[in-house]
Amino acid sequence: MNLNERDFTVGDVPGVLWLPETLPAPLVLLGHGGGRDRKSPPMTGRAELLVAQGFAAAAIDAPGHGDRPRSPYDDEEIALMQRAMATGEPVGPIVVRYNADLARRAVPEWQAVLDMLLELPEIAGPVGYFGLNMGSAIGIPLTAADSRITAAAFGLFWPDLVAEAAKRITVPVEFAMQWDDEHIPREAGLALFEAFGSAEKSLHVNTGRHKDLPRYEADSAVRFFVRHLKK
Amino acid sequence: MNLNERDFTVGDVPGVLWLPETLPAPLVLLGHGGGRDRKSPPMTGRAELLVAQGFAAAAIDAPGHGDRPRSPYDDEEIALMQRAMATGEPVGPIVVRYNADLARRAVPEWQAVLDMLLELPEIAGPVGYFGLNMGSAIGIPLTAADSRITAAAFGLFWPDLVAEAAKRITVPVEFAMQWDDEHIPREAGLALFEAFGSAEKSLHVNTGRHKDLPRYEADSAVRFFVRHLKK
Repeated sequence: MNLNERDFTVGDVPGVLWLPETLPAPLVLLGHGGGRDRKSPPMTGRAELLVAQGFAAAAIDAPGHGDRPRSPYDDEEIALMQRAMATGEPVGPIVVRYNADLARRAVPEWQAVLDMLLELPEIAGPVGYFGLNMGSAIGIPLTAADSRITAAAFGLFWPDLVAEAAKRITVPVEFAMQWDDEHIPREAGLALFEAFGSAEKSLHVNTGRHKDLPRYEADSAVRFFVRHLKK
Repeated sequence: MNLNERDFTVGDVPGVLWLPETLPAPLVLLGHGGGRDRKSPPMTGRAELLVAQGFAAAAIDAPGHGDRPRSPYDDEEIALMQRAMATGEPVGPIVVRYNADLARRAVPEWQAVLDMLLELPEIAGPVGYFGLNMGSAIGIPLTAADSRITAAAFGLFWPDLVAEAAKRITVPVEFAMQWDDEHIPREAGLALFEAFGSAEKSLHVNTGRHKDLPRYEADSAVRFFVRHLKK
């Protein structure tokens, strides 16, 4: 599939916009995971699925990711994470703390990007957000803060530090977790699902470890956006 | 959609077989809920979805349901259930006990029906089972007992009396539960999901009460059978 792909920059944040054939189109924001960037395979893969359903999709590099510089603090936290991974220590507390800092930086960036995108004649209608792992750590406070986002798909994160924002979210949510996640205990995943204030929310659990999340959950998230953003 | 529908009887059990255009076809057995029968709307609706994906589907009347006579014991348990519903007492203990008795009667009936269906030239390949509520109470011991069933979609039931059979099931399972079920506590639904011995299992939770299970979960179950029975 040939994606109609357009690069953009807002301030010093590089981004990419994918457009479907029929315009104007509703928009889904794609938040990438830790260590990834705006054009890594999960982003382009989800963009393809969304564009095929008539959505526009947009991704930006998170702070310290992709083409963006790392601060000394970024370097320090990434080194701690890598050391924990190598020694088998729990990586959760570091990820939770570091991603909360990234979210504080990334939320206003996403909001400025959304301001720009919603000015384009190619974009019209409701906005969704789709992001797992760090994409949830950033997307949960973003969705809580920005009423323009009216449906969101999240997953694979701890409740610590994001549960308060999750409680303020009232738009429909689809949440994915892994039943045998070696990093995120079951109770933690269920607690984050429970935290969302949304009257309409769905939880998808699959057996397997953290990285075994089935590919078909991306199709499921796209169907979720079709139900909520195209009615 | 015009369903190619064929009535049959095995012993004193009335059943119906729906066939797709392309034959022979893999088969999904449909177990109806309490108070329903082989041709009630959830059965014909799911049959339509399955036939559209190239599956044959079959349903039979459970003991004491549809065109089948009720025993004095059936009458007694149904009266107790209706009284509990009317007075707001917990209906779970009665349903669990009564459905366990129905399952003891229904499992050998399903197995005789399956013997007959697998002799038909129109049926070939793997077999699935799909049933919620009483359809799970019967389907869980059936799937545990019959190795011809190689994928199963269940939901909306208590772990009491079926958890032991669930532990013996090792084929892929998709399980649906309601987060705000007024009859089945969350912990009970999660405990039944956890009980399945399957290495590959998925849980779909949605907000809402017992009868609010979203229609799109039937589409999801059909996709589950496509993944597991048509590969």
